[in-house]
Amino acid sequence: MSQANGGPGAPAPGPLAILCGAGAFPLEVAGEARRAGRDPFLVGVVGATDSAIEAYPHVWVRMGEVGKLFAALKGRAIAEMVIIGAMTRPEFADLRLDWGAVKRAAGLAQLFRRGDNGLLAGVAAIFEREGVRVVGAHEVAPRLLAPVGPIGARMASDEDEIDIALGARLLGALSSFDAGQGAIVAAGRVLAIEAAEGTDAMLERVADMRANGRLRLAGLAGVLVKAPKRGQDLRLDMPAIGPKTIEGAVKAQLRGVAAAAGHVLILGRERCAREADTAGLFVAGFGHAPPAG
Amino acid sequence: MSQANGGPGAPAPGPLAILCGAGAFPLEVAGEARRAGRDPFLVGVVGATDSAIEAYPHVWVRMGEVGKLFAALKGRAIAEMVIIGAMTRPEFADLRLDWGAVKRAAGLAQLFRRGDNGLLAGVAAIFEREGVRVVGAHEVAPRLLAPVGPIGARMASDEDEIDIALGARLLGALSSFDAGQGAIVAAGRVLAIEAAEGTDAMLERVADMRANGRLRLAGLAGVLVKAPKRGQDLRLDMPAIGPKTIEGAVKAQLRGVAAAAGHVLILGRERCAREADTAGLFVAGFGHAPPAG
Repeated sequence: MSQANGGPGAPAPGPLAILCGAGAFPLEVAGEARRAGRDPFLVGVVGATDSAIEAYPHVWVRMGEVGKLFAALKGRAIAEMVIIGAMTRPEFADLRLDWGAVKRAAGLAQLFRRGDNGLLAGVAAIFEREGVRVVGAHEVAPRLLAPVGPIGARMASDEDEIDIALGARLLGALSSFDAGQGAIVAAGRVLAIEAAEGTDAMLERVADMRANGRLRLAGLAGVLVKAPKRGQDLRLDMPAIGPKTIEGAVKAQLRGVAAAAGHVLILGRERCAREADTAGLFVAGFGHAPPAG
Repeated sequence: MSQANGGPGAPAPGPLAILCGAGAFPLEVAGEARRAGRDPFLVGVVGATDSAIEAYPHVWVRMGEVGKLFAALKGRAIAEMVIIGAMTRPEFADLRLDWGAVKRAAGLAQLFRRGDNGLLAGVAAIFEREGVRVVGAHEVAPRLLAPVGPIGARMASDEDEIDIALGARLLGALSSFDAGQGAIVAAGRVLAIEAAEGTDAMLERVADMRANGRLRLAGLAGVLVKAPKRGQDLRLDMPAIGPKTIEGAVKAQLRGVAAAAGHVLILGRERCAREADTAGLFVAGFGHAPPAG
């Protein structure tokens, strides 16, 4: 760490890089960071990041332009970075490796082995080795975290709470497998478990199963439960929900969406609450003790 | 039990009812039972069972015609039954309850509560209460069980064995949740976990993710692992693979299909082996100690 901290583990003041994946989440984090007095510098990935990041000081890099990225950070004396937004796992062959990447080739090659946790942990290690501390979006923008309790008008019923607890136990049992961060449970029955397809595709699957009669449930039924994996580095890969999640939950005719309080980011919280209210769904954080890990 | 047994747990000789779900599996079991000297009597469910069962002595019942079913069994002095083939979980409102069903209404109502294990265990209990012993397809047709090792020309590689072991551990961790019986693992990464959608839909999902670039894997990659849930009553709901599974695995460009030896049925074994050989996949049983219940 090349900068003094406000306290142990607290984000340093000063400039903050935001490595931006796809979607609107990076901009929301940038806004929160600026409100907190930080000076955000956004790094866009060509082909992935929304061009709206250009509203902030920014640089564009291609996947693999590691040298260009570090030069941009060092030129601005940036010692902290948030990684946020959806990233497609790249194929090694697609990378445009620059000299800065080739110099770090051994470390990069190790990234292309295992599950997502391994990939992201390796990315973080490479940054930290260069003196850039990777911090979590929740550290620079804690207002984006799921609270305990509902964010809209509806609350989870007692029956919903039982499904939420079952989903949370299921995700806990799965979490050492570096698989998914979500499951859908209806009245004690596990309808869907997320792996590589992601939350949106899982919601779509439940909507399809209800439409084609494979799942026959009356009215609103089922709860989407989101929680981090055991040992998941929240600085790198925090589970998140947003308006698209709510839209998917509405199409799947769920009763609600439950996110581990303090461990899941909520993007577009007001819009999420409004859309859930309109459809009669609850969106709520549930008390979550991270599993030992 | 109203009939003498050949030994503890061994199927009694004499007539055997086969309650037939969808697909060709019931006919295969009937053929094996006849080869073993049993006298199969097939029960078709209107709207679900293939009419090909009419090649055997049979009766058709509608969902809910419980009285008619028991009368047919008693009229033929049948004291043993196999339940086999895909069954859609019926909605209570769709049942055509006859007087025999109404008499047993309390027991039937309890079936419409929880996961599949609960449903099937309740069905079995109702039959046993009427003096009809429910036996497993594996007891009357053991030649349909997955062996240890390959059924075709290809064998699992050492890397495949690592994926198979990971998939088996994952299914073990999940099994107390009465969810799925399958997962797809590629080089240590969990690609898909089965719940209510079933194995065929899970295979299709992986094929789709590879086609749309969400999963970028080179060549044949990944293994489908099938194993029973903990405490799963194999008489009622034994995991099964068949030519459709192989077809799905080929479309998903998997390296192979692995089934818990002695705990998974293989339908159309020769066709499975032939189609897997043609596509360069392995189909193999793996040594499986059933998890403590």
